[in-house]
Amino acid sequence: MGTFKEKKQRVEFIAVGSELLSPHFLETDSLYLSEKLQELGWRLSFKTVVGDSLEELKEAVRIARQRSWLIFISGGLGPTEDDRTRQAVAEVLGARLIFNKAILEKIRQRFESRGLRMTPSNRRQAYVIEGAEVLENPHGTAPGLWLESRKQIIVLLPGPPSELKPMVDNLVLPRLRKYGEVKVLRAVLRITGAGESFIEDRIKPVYKDLPKNLQLITLASPGDIQIRLEMTAASQPERDVRTFNRIKNRIVRRLGPLVYSTQGQSLEEVVGEKLRAAGLRLACAESCSGGLLAHRLTNIPGSSDYFLEGLVTYSNQSKVRELGVPEELLASKGAVSEEVARVMAENLREKSGADFALSTTGIAGPGGGTPAKPVGLVYTGLAFPGGSTVLRNLFRGNREQIKFQATQKALDMLRLKLMEMEKRDS
Amino acid sequence: MGTFKEKKQRVEFIAVGSELLSPHFLETDSLYLSEKLQELGWRLSFKTVVGDSLEELKEAVRIARQRSWLIFISGGLGPTEDDRTRQAVAEVLGARLIFNKAILEKIRQRFESRGLRMTPSNRRQAYVIEGAEVLENPHGTAPGLWLESRKQIIVLLPGPPSELKPMVDNLVLPRLRKYGEVKVLRAVLRITGAGESFIEDRIKPVYKDLPKNLQLITLASPGDIQIRLEMTAASQPERDVRTFNRIKNRIVRRLGPLVYSTQGQSLEEVVGEKLRAAGLRLACAESCSGGLLAHRLTNIPGSSDYFLEGLVTYSNQSKVRELGVPEELLASKGAVSEEVARVMAENLREKSGADFALSTTGIAGPGGGTPAKPVGLVYTGLAFPGGSTVLRNLFRGNREQIKFQATQKALDMLRLKLMEMEKRDS
Repeated sequence: MGTFKEKKQRVEFIAVGSELLSPHFLETDSLYLSEKLQELGWRLSFKTVVGDSLEELKEAVRIARQRSWLIFISGGLGPTEDDRTRQAVAEVLGARLIFNKAILEKIRQRFESRGLRMTPSNRRQAYVIEGAEVLENPHGTAPGLWLESRKQIIVLLPGPPSELKPMVDNLVLPRLRKYGEVKVLRAVLRITGAGESFIEDRIKPVYKDLPKNLQLITLASPGDIQIRLEMTAASQPERDVRTFNRIKNRIVRRLGPLVYSTQGQSLEEVVGEKLRAAGLRLACAESCSGGLLAHRLTNIPGSSDYFLEGLVTYSNQSKVRELGVPEELLASKGAVSEEVARVMAENLREKSGADFALSTTGIAGPGGGTPAKPVGLVYTGLAFPGGSTVLRNLFRGNREQIKFQATQKALDMLRLKLMEMEKRDS
Repeated sequence: MGTFKEKKQRVEFIAVGSELLSPHFLETDSLYLSEKLQELGWRLSFKTVVGDSLEELKEAVRIARQRSWLIFISGGLGPTEDDRTRQAVAEVLGARLIFNKAILEKIRQRFESRGLRMTPSNRRQAYVIEGAEVLENPHGTAPGLWLESRKQIIVLLPGPPSELKPMVDNLVLPRLRKYGEVKVLRAVLRITGAGESFIEDRIKPVYKDLPKNLQLITLASPGDIQIRLEMTAASQPERDVRTFNRIKNRIVRRLGPLVYSTQGQSLEEVVGEKLRAAGLRLACAESCSGGLLAHRLTNIPGSSDYFLEGLVTYSNQSKVRELGVPEELLASKGAVSEEVARVMAENLREKSGADFALSTTGIAGPGGGTPAKPVGLVYTGLAFPGGSTVLRNLFRGNREQIKFQATQKALDMLRLKLMEMEKRDS
C-alpha cells in the first residue's frame, strides 16, 4: 500500500469519537492542524473519523500505519471507559501501557488547586504507551503522547480544541520543524459592507494574473467576507514576496475602505486598536442585538481600557429609564425607528462620558415583523463628538445572523468614523 | 478485516476533494446523511476525507469495500480533470465506464434552458460505471450512481449539499428502506454544575446495565456536559421503550438537579420557559461576562416577554452610576467581590422592577489576575423576591470560556431558584 517514498510524504489525521459520526458534531481539530502544517509546507492526505469501538479504532490505526509517515490521532484520551485511543495504539504497536505516577500526581494537583477531589476514573489517563514521550497538557487532564521511530511518527492529542491547539503550537510544531520548513506567504483580507458577488466582480480583473503557487479562497457569511491569499514561496523568495504583495495590494486598492483588516483580525479587534491608539472611549446602547455588541467588544483582552459600558435596553420602559428615550417618541415613531436609534446613541454618549456611543434597534425575528417594519429591519446609530448618524439596514437571515449583522454594521460605522478622524488629524 | 456479519452492519462515508483537506473547508454532507440514516436505525462506522489523487481515492474505496456493507462516496463527479470518483470506483471494481447518451442530452438541455452552451468537459459526466443505476440530479449536472450487488451497495453522490440532499431524500432513502426501518429512541441530557469525571463516577453503576442497542455518548465542555442516549428499537418495541426510559430515569435520578434538560434545550431556553410559565421577569447586571448573558437570553425568540434589560457595567464609574454601587465599597472590597456582586443584583432588581436580577463580576483574563484574585475568579449573584445569594467561582480556561462559565453559573442559580419556588407553590 504505497512505496516507502510515498508513505514518507503522507500525513494523516484520525479523529476518535462516536459523537463525531453523529449528525450533531463536526470535527474541527483537523482544520487547525492542517493550517499549522501548511507552515511546514505539508498537507493532509487522509482524514478519518472513527467511533469509540476498540476494534474499529485499531483498524483505522493499522491502515494509517501502512500508508502514512506522520499520523495524528485526536480524542479518546479522556477518563471514561469510552476513551480507548491509548489502548488501541498500544495494541496495534504491540507495546505495553505503563502506569506513570508523575502524570497521576499532576492530575491530582489540578483537581486540588480547584478545591476538588480527583475521581478514580482519572487513573486511566496516567497510562503511557511504552516508548512514548509525554506531551504535557496544562489545559486539561489528558496528556498527549509522541511516538517516534525511524520510519514513523504517531502523535496522540486530546480532542477538545482548547487543549489540542496549545499542544500543537507549543510541543508538536517545534518537534516537527526539524523535518523541514517552507516559507508560506499569507494574508487574510476581511471585508464588510458589501455582498459576495459585488466583491467578486470588483476583484475579478486580478484573477487572471494570479501565479500558480498563489491560492485565493473567498469565504462569505452574512455581514463578513474573507479573502485568503496563500503562496508557497518557491526558489526565488524575494521575487515571490514582491509578487505576493503586488497582488494583495491590487485587491486591497480595488476594494478600498471595505477592507477592514489584511491580517485576519476581527472587526472588534480593529476598532479596539484604533480606540486605544487614539485614547478614545466607547459605550453601547443595544436593543435588537441584545448584548452581542458588548459581548464582541469585551471578548478582546484589555477592552476595559476603552469600553465603558453597554446598556441592553430590551423593553420600552428600559429605553425610557436608562436612556431617557421620550415616551412620546416611542409612541409616535415606535422603538424600531431612526429617531429612537439616534436618541439612544446621543443620550448614552452624554450620560456615560464616552467619546462614542453606538446603538441598535430592530426586529431580529422570527416573530414581530410587519409589512412596514419587516424582520431584519435594523437601525444602527453612532453618536460622536459633534454629531450623530443613523443607518437604516435590511438584513437577511435567522435571528442570530440578524443580531450579528447589526453589531457588524454598528462597529463598521465607528471604524469608518475613526478613519475619517485619523485622516483629518494627519 | 471484519467478518461478513460485521461488514454487513457497517456503513461508511467517503468525501472526495482536496479542498476538504485544507484548513478552510468543513465537510458537512456526512452530517446530513447520518441524520437520515438514523431514521433507518443505522450509524456511520467510518468517515474518510480523501483528496483528488486517483491512487489515494482508489485506496480509500478499496479499504471501504473490505470492511463495509454500504458505502457512500460524495464529490468528484464534476466535469473537471480533478473529478475522478467514477474512474476510481470503476478501476477498483474492475468495471468499464460506458458512455450514456441520455445523460449528455440532459446536461445539454440544462445548459440551454439557462441560455448557456455546454462545455466539452461536461462529456466526462456522461460516463456510467457498468452495472450502475443512474440517480438523476435535477439540481446540477452530475448524476449519482447506485451500484448494488448481493454483498454490497456503493452509492456515488454529488458533493454540493444542494444537490446531495434532495438526491438522498428522493432517490437513496426510498431504495434503502427495504433493508429495514427501525425506530430510534433518543434523549439528550444536559448538565451543569459539576465536572465530567464527577458525572462519570455518578452514573458508572448504570453502565453495566446498558443494553447492546443503547448508545451513550458524553460530551463535555467547560460549564456544560451532554449525555446523549440513542437506542435502536429491536424486535419488541414496547419493551425497548420501557428499557430506554428506565435507563434514562436512573441516570436523571442519580444526577438530580444537575440535569437541566432531558430534551437537549439550552440553559437559556429552560430558564426562559420557566420565567414565561410563571409570568416572572428578569434583568442582568454584567461585568466580567461583558454582555454574553444578555446575548444568550436574547438569542431565544420571544425573550422580550420576560427579559427587561441588561446593564454591562464594565467600568467602575458605570457600576456607580448605573447600579448605585457605593464608591467606598469598590474602594474597600474591590469590584471583584461578593459584596459588589450582591449590590449589583439587588440594586438592579429594585431599579428595573424585575422579579429577578442576575449579576457577574470577575476576572476573565488573560491579564488582571493577582494571587488573591486570580484569573477565573468570578462572583455570580442572584437577587430574588425576598433576598439574594452570591456564589464564589474559580473557573478555568481562556477568556471566552470564563465568560461562558460565568453566564452558565448565573443562569443555573436562577434555574435552581425557580425550581425551589415551583416546589414550594405545588
